[in-house]
Amino acid sequence: MRPKGIAFQGEHGAYSEEAIYQRFGGKAETVPCKTIPEVFNLAEVEAVRYGVVPIENSIEGSVHETYDSLITSSAKIAGEIVLRVVHCLIALPSTTMRDLKVVYSHPQALAQCRGFLASLGVTVMVAYDTAGSVKLIKEKRMANAAAVASENAARIYKMSVLSRGIEDYGRNYTRFLVLSTKEGPRGSGYKTSVIFSLPHVPGSLYNALESFARHGINLTKIESRPTRQRPWEYYFFLDFEGHRDDTVQRGALRELVSKTIFFKVLGSYPKAKVEPSPREGGGSS
Amino acid sequence: MRPKGIAFQGEHGAYSEEAIYQRFGGKAETVPCKTIPEVFNLAEVEAVRYGVVPIENSIEGSVHETYDSLITSSAKIAGEIVLRVVHCLIALPSTTMRDLKVVYSHPQALAQCRGFLASLGVTVMVAYDTAGSVKLIKEKRMANAAAVASENAARIYKMSVLSRGIEDYGRNYTRFLVLSTKEGPRGSGYKTSVIFSLPHVPGSLYNALESFARHGINLTKIESRPTRQRPWEYYFFLDFEGHRDDTVQRGALRELVSKTIFFKVLGSYPKAKVEPSPREGGGSS
Repeated sequence: MRPKGIAFQGEHGAYSEEAIYQRFGGKAETVPCKTIPEVFNLAEVEAVRYGVVPIENSIEGSVHETYDSLITSSAKIAGEIVLRVVHCLIALPSTTMRDLKVVYSHPQALAQCRGFLASLGVTVMVAYDTAGSVKLIKEKRMANAAAVASENAARIYKMSVLSRGIEDYGRNYTRFLVLSTKEGPRGSGYKTSVIFSLPHVPGSLYNALESFARHGINLTKIESRPTRQRPWEYYFFLDFEGHRDDTVQRGALRELVSKTIFFKVLGSYPKAKVEPSPREGGGSS
Repeated sequence: MRPKGIAFQGEHGAYSEEAIYQRFGGKAETVPCKTIPEVFNLAEVEAVRYGVVPIENSIEGSVHETYDSLITSSAKIAGEIVLRVVHCLIALPSTTMRDLKVVYSHPQALAQCRGFLASLGVTVMVAYDTAGSVKLIKEKRMANAAAVASENAARIYKMSVLSRGIEDYGRNYTRFLVLSTKEGPRGSGYKTSVIFSLPHVPGSLYNALESFARHGINLTKIESRPTRQRPWEYYFFLDFEGHRDDTVQRGALRELVSKTIFFKVLGSYPKAKVEPSPREGGGSS
């Protein structure tokens, strides 16, 4: 029987789990993992139906660990999810804003709320996890502490939301990848992701992009990561519009392959539909 | 009188301070700062002679916070430093390997020693700082704890090195930028760094790189960071060989400017001389 669980990194209540519920519905069976490579492993061996990992945030940028795992993993990208991130300040139900002395969270969440936290004049403490910080405060009954995490985390651990939407920038989205052993079927409104490395000569990146420019294929993201074999040599990650099996894209990829030292298609998958932001969208309540 | 201090992020004993000593000699007057933006600020207002900030590690990749500060800062890049990173396990002089239950450090240092730390079977705790972790263990007299930091940090806080060179990858280098209000004079063996943003149309990045490829100018690094104004729009950072005032480079830059929405030269500066690695270089002791 096909496994049903969907793996993510973090404790229950993590933003990755929220992304799973947004895409697969609130009854999805979620499987928490300690690390991002562990999510890749479970997806590779089909111990879960999918893995869901963060790849990029619209404020903080790329998630290095996910890019590094894509290099070595045999998992394919079967989809993407774009989640609007709303950070909350979460504490024990008896705690008020006036009691706060210390705030715990993941460094990236703390960075996104830097202005708000500075105005509180609290001590900021780094932790591995957003939802894990909520759990910590609950378990240790820390009356003068709060965590930065999702509303979902407050609900799960039965904790109070002291303040909602505390991020400094409103347009805060995180893009997640859906990992599987198989790619999705061909369709329209697709994106394709590839990795490659290049010979160390002038113009090599320019030449690599040439076939995409000539065919008018839109590049949606380019990212580089160190190869770790020789200092200052890079893997390039390229996202572009279209399916790998579309005629034009197939031609561009064939040309790209001939210019690279290393090449791998990560997958073609439907572009994410972006949920309207709770601040920007809608209007009526 | 011109200020003499050189600012860096972290506590005394940080790797950034080691980079300063490597470049400016062991008697350089160092000025510790809490954050990377603070180092930029001091350099901008000439409260210090230089600021020194990490930009890229050969294993972990780019330092997002430095790239983000380069966008908004008026500081110029006056030089670069490449430091061979050797991580040490540091504890109170009375502590032995057998006593260890917990290891503290900055997440990036912990990640670079993941294999070694896993073999110890200790609990790993994240902290803001490598040298700050050494200071913490000393001040709180933590008998069962160690920190991952530089040998220099052990010396400064009079602590013991339990193990030296504990990083999983030997070829571990960090590249630092030297910040100033002025660029260096024109010379040979130079590199130039620029930032730009592009219109969101197919082929725009390819077109931007065109003049560099045509003139055979070697690109040494390309990096992108979110603009934070609109999700999934990027600033591009480009490093290439040559001085901005060299004839060919000047021509390529003029062409690049005409294709960008936003453009800024960060500086031309001499390429770093890489110190031989303590593992790879030398031979005789």
